[in-house]
Amino acid sequence: MMIIMRTDASQAEIAAVVERVRSLGLRAHVSVGDERTIIGAIGDGRSAYEHKDQFLFLAGVDRVLPISRPYKLASREFRPQNSVFRLNGVSIGDKGIVLIAGPCSVESRQQFIETALAVREAGAHALRGGVFKPRTSPYSFQGLGEAGLEILAEARQMSGLPVVSEVMREEQIPLMTRYVDVLQIGARNMQNFALLHAVGESQHPVLLKRGMMATVEELLMAAEYILSHGNQRVILCERGIRTFETATRNTTDINAIPVLKELTHLPVILDPSHSTGNWNYVTAVARAGIAAGADGLIVEVHPKPEAALSDGGQSLKPERFAELVRQVKAVAEAIGREVAPKPAMAAQQA
Amino acid sequence: MMIIMRTDASQAEIAAVVERVRSLGLRAHVSVGDERTIIGAIGDGRSAYEHKDQFLFLAGVDRVLPISRPYKLASREFRPQNSVFRLNGVSIGDKGIVLIAGPCSVESRQQFIETALAVREAGAHALRGGVFKPRTSPYSFQGLGEAGLEILAEARQMSGLPVVSEVMREEQIPLMTRYVDVLQIGARNMQNFALLHAVGESQHPVLLKRGMMATVEELLMAAEYILSHGNQRVILCERGIRTFETATRNTTDINAIPVLKELTHLPVILDPSHSTGNWNYVTAVARAGIAAGADGLIVEVHPKPEAALSDGGQSLKPERFAELVRQVKAVAEAIGREVAPKPAMAAQQA
Amino acid sequence: MMIIMRTDASQAEIAAVVERVRSLGLRAHVSVGDERTIIGAIGDGRSAYEHKDQFLFLAGVDRVLPISRPYKLASREFRPQNSVFRLNGVSIGDKGIVLIAGPCSVESRQQFIETALAVREAGAHALRGGVFKPRTSPYSFQGLGEAGLEILAEARQMSGLPVVSEVMREEQIPLMTRYVDVLQIGARNMQNFALLHAVGESQHPVLLKRGMMATVEELLMAAEYILSHGNQRVILCERGIRTFETATRNTTDINAIPVLKELTHLPVILDPSHSTGNWNYVTAVARAGIAAGADGLIVEVHPKPEAALSDGGQSLKPERFAELVRQVKAVAEAIGREVAPKPAMAAQQA
Amino acid sequence: MMIIMRTDASQAEIAAVVERVRSLGLRAHVSVGDERTIIGAIGDGRSAYEHKDQFLFLAGVDRVLPISRPYKLASREFRPQNSVFRLNGVSIGDKGIVLIAGPCSVESRQQFIETALAVREAGAHALRGGVFKPRTSPYSFQGLGEAGLEILAEARQMSGLPVVSEVMREEQIPLMTRYVDVLQIGARNMQNFALLHAVGESQHPVLLKRGMMATVEELLMAAEYILSHGNQRVILCERGIRTFETATRNTTDINAIPVLKELTHLPVILDPSHSTGNWNYVTAVARAGIAAGADGLIVEVHPKPEAALSDGGQSLKPERFAELVRQVKAVAEAIGREVAPKPAMAAQQA
Repeated sequence: MMIIMRTDASQAEIAAVVERVRSLGLRAHVSVGDERTIIGAIGDGRSAYEHKDQFLFLAGVDRVLPISRPYKLASREFRPQNSVFRLNGVSIGDKGIVLIAGPCSVESRQQFIETALAVREAGAHALRGGVFKPRTSPYSFQGLGEAGLEILAEARQMSGLPVVSEVMREEQIPLMTRYVDVLQIGARNMQNFALLHAVGESQHPVLLKRGMMATVEELLMAAEYILSHGNQRVILCERGIRTFETATRNTTDINAIPVLKELTHLPVILDPSHSTGNWNYVTAVARAGIAAGADGLIVEVHPKPEAALSDGGQSLKPERFAELVRQVKAVAEAIGREVAPKPAMAAQQA
Repeated sequence: MMIIMRTDASQAEIAAVVERVRSLGLRAHVSVGDERTIIGAIGDGRSAYEHKDQFLFLAGVDRVLPISRPYKLASREFRPQNSVFRLNGVSIGDKGIVLIAGPCSVESRQQFIETALAVREAGAHALRGGVFKPRTSPYSFQGLGEAGLEILAEARQMSGLPVVSEVMREEQIPLMTRYVDVLQIGARNMQNFALLHAVGESQHPVLLKRGMMATVEELLMAAEYILSHGNQRVILCERGIRTFETATRNTTDINAIPVLKELTHLPVILDPSHSTGNWNYVTAVARAGIAAGADGLIVEVHPKPEAALSDGGQSLKPERFAELVRQVKAVAEAIGREVAPKPAMAAQQA
Repeated sequence: MMIIMRTDASQAEIAAVVERVRSLGLRAHVSVGDERTIIGAIGDGRSAYEHKDQFLFLAGVDRVLPISRPYKLASREFRPQNSVFRLNGVSIGDKGIVLIAGPCSVESRQQFIETALAVREAGAHALRGGVFKPRTSPYSFQGLGEAGLEILAEARQMSGLPVVSEVMREEQIPLMTRYVDVLQIGARNMQNFALLHAVGESQHPVLLKRGMMATVEELLMAAEYILSHGNQRVILCERGIRTFETATRNTTDINAIPVLKELTHLPVILDPSHSTGNWNYVTAVARAGIAAGADGLIVEVHPKPEAALSDGGQSLKPERFAELVRQVKAVAEAIGREVAPKPAMAAQQA
Repeated sequence: MMIIMRTDASQAEIAAVVERVRSLGLRAHVSVGDERTIIGAIGDGRSAYEHKDQFLFLAGVDRVLPISRPYKLASREFRPQNSVFRLNGVSIGDKGIVLIAGPCSVESRQQFIETALAVREAGAHALRGGVFKPRTSPYSFQGLGEAGLEILAEARQMSGLPVVSEVMREEQIPLMTRYVDVLQIGARNMQNFALLHAVGESQHPVLLKRGMMATVEELLMAAEYILSHGNQRVILCERGIRTFETATRNTTDINAIPVLKELTHLPVILDPSHSTGNWNYVTAVARAGIAAGADGLIVEVHPKPEAALSDGGQSLKPERFAELVRQVKAVAEAIGREVAPKPAMAAQQA
């Protein structure tokens, strides 16, 4: 870290800062400018910055700037090649683009299986469907709970597609890992560190959604929590951030796609359903995500969006999803990628 | 809710919307304007809006607007009088302003007890101190855990002051309720609905911090989760929101104080340590919070902020906290309130 | 507008609101719900809402909601077909995508003409280059001023391409309209209403950049200022908004592209240079903009970005711009559009 | 500035950066850390950072960090003492708190003079009233224009109070300086650099409102534009920023008060009318502003807010303003300040 002294700092104040740096086992590197002096504290970057607060109280100090990035395992500097891993027969993080689709919530056996077969037919590689639902209102539908897991298992069997579903509590993990292929951490839990710790230990693939007010760096720190427990299979998901604009439910941070692809080796996907909050804009923003370099999409699809128990307004009907797949395929090919091939039915054995 | 039709909606489209409203068991109230038609769907307000997505797919519909507020138990319309309750001998929500102080984290017996006695001496009514710490980095100090609870208990005994501490997981609740007087829900867990549910059921007093990305309405919805389980002792805490401004760590939403006091009967306090992130600004913003009508403050105090394991940069030394208390007292009296009287030592029996 | 009464409003209070609505020459439409009464004030939508403040002071009123959109001439409801117009031989707003390129500032004759010929060769349809520069610091390069206009004119002549340049003051308009084909209103002037009025009266084509903190609706209101003076040739430009994220200079609001294409008939382009602030991300976000449905791009190109007097860090070298054009062409074709054909040299006579 | 190299930068890349630093006439200071090398470019701080873009294109460079603050004349490092100056007999920037009050717009002779006399009676030290109005909609009331200036002059004469009014265009300056004591730069024009330049040259006192999207640093840079033309009489005004919260029209950035008081010697005031947008919250937030250390307030007051042509919803009636003055006086005294004494009538000669 760099400790920036005030322009009026005295020699004694500078000496006291240098002394403190050394007392922490770091080396001090003093740079005397025309206006002010800057002191570099050199040692292991991440741990040095842990000490920054110490310096904010010393006389003559103006600011302290971090230099090292606070994450390591998630960074491309640590691992230059893309992380590629398989979800039940489909590779993610590679040239092929992966499409995950399904309803916001599992509402009934018929609703979910009908959707699963329709999205498979349209070209999806994995299913999504929540059984434990984080709802803003205590009076809203909270998901089918464990009963929904049986439906997920049946749809998984019938479609041969792997299943992504959100986990809200640590205790749900042992049960869920028996039924689902990817544990989703929802946006509101991106900094639920106890949960990150637990899914890290589970060694199960994780789809980590960016919090609606989380920076790219915080998303990478949340991934670091999971990676630091030895779980390397983490998919990052941009799902829109909160801004002053109210024309859409969230603001898709499309910049985050190339930024993340530069900073990390982990696969990066986009959720255009939440990032727009309006089915009318989903296809345009899905195309944009692929054009920007995303490795996949997660899209809400419902056979009767107008009757959905949650998020109907941002869900596509299956036929519109099929059209989205056609358009995304064309964009993927235009930039030298491709939509991943359809998984064989035999892939269904986990 | 109100369903706003497009200016070019046909009579058939309007009729279809009316029909749908009725099919949901609601009454339709059609208002024909010069430019467009608006259809009111009348019934129980909260549940009506649950159906809004249905209408977004009907031809001719432009927008759907909620009318009822989505929370009930938390609202002043439901309960016009301030909720007042006692924390170990001190009333909160009443004329007297309550001051909660202590370090970010319990680091050692000596550090915490020294702080506890100093803030009591300075005028604090309750202690704060985290033992389970939500940290952005997996490499940062994560709290003393259960060992810290014994220290909290000893400090509580010695000072006679009630203790506030953050709970991060449901399983911690039974243990924590044996040691602490108020369960804190941290900003990052404000929409951890499983945890809200659990503290609601605990019937233990709760200090609910506003998420850094949460609207006032979402804060009230989170409180509603707790209230709906019959737990009426909820304190709301403004702790700064995230904006584009980087001169301070967060932006104190001072407007939220009078807004919350108007919308809800629950006590509202301010955390100027987190809302500024810089000890240098804490006292000024603490004064502002009281002037704006807050019912209390929660302030980070550390005997040696420069050596704190977390949040040192925003912690006050005990003597500065004593000065803050003096200034806050003067402001409170200027607006016709007062700092609550010092609790008697005998109050220590929970 | 709709006037939402409090749940505890009395009959007398409701009657007083109705009376006030009528006194304004509007019709009142009373809707009695289970929880509360809502009063619609019916008349010309836009003007009705002008009166909203009146109702905020009447007893028993909770809120007032606008119903009509506040712009008219800019809306698709007013004009369903895309506005298409020609800039010196190239159509904008049509199937063909228009590429505008050039340096942030005109720095010298050589720099600008070299860039102009290079971007023409690469496929640009128009040139950009500032001569009056709005700079955050009074100590930064402020542009060549009128001397730069001669350079623009020469480059326009040599390349046959129309020229876009920013106007900062009304008095500059008569001079600039002799030299430039499109007057640019910069983001910081999007609500400089005196300037909007003046470019409206000029009847010259206008490129209107969205303010970095302006909503989509405010952008459309700013366009309405220009349109209401009879100037129909307005191009809207998304250039990134300000959010909490600091990984990029601004956040590209990619959602705004399909939102604007739905709400307005005006052409919509994207500026990926400002919306990312980093040349490294410009091409990815340019592709995304086209995939999302933009009608064109405006891109900063500089022969030596490392020596640019402004915005070098977000400028592409000419060869990278040529690569951007190739990629954008492929994406355009993938979604059934095309990059507009190269203009003939003969198009240079304005 | 500090140039942070990548962890994998080669010795040759480091040497090339050092060479470039020297070629700019700066000194290079190389700091070799365990993970990476950092190169300080030492010279005049502000001008060094102008070159930062040069380094972003050199191989091996990760980031470039500014060290010096970009403003000078506005900083407390440059001028440690508070700037204090007189507005027609009242000092601002000193111990005494200055209250500016009046309607958003001058609507008629009667409306403005009635308000002027009422706010003087209540304790205001200066009048506010717009005659040129920046309105979001071209269809809204745009102000009385020059006719309004005569009314301002008459009210100034009758009340003996100085007058603040917004200037929107450079050409209005000569006329306005004959009638008004303080030229206001509105939030939407905070980065209208041509206008800042012109009011700088006018040598007339300026009230500079923070843009709703401007950082504290940008506000100080805007002030620097004015100061750099030799005009030292600049008052800074916090008026709320735009965030995701919609419960109030803007979010009062109360932190900005102590931050500005630390960074600059210029007087800092608060506009609680715009920063809340709701008369109901104005008094609470006005008290908070004074408690946080503001040197004054500017408050919208209207004899009949319900009939105001603009901003009625956030205007106080004169009797409520009188109550605000009483409360603000008590808070000021509680923190060791005072509301400035009433100006003598004789002060009216400019």
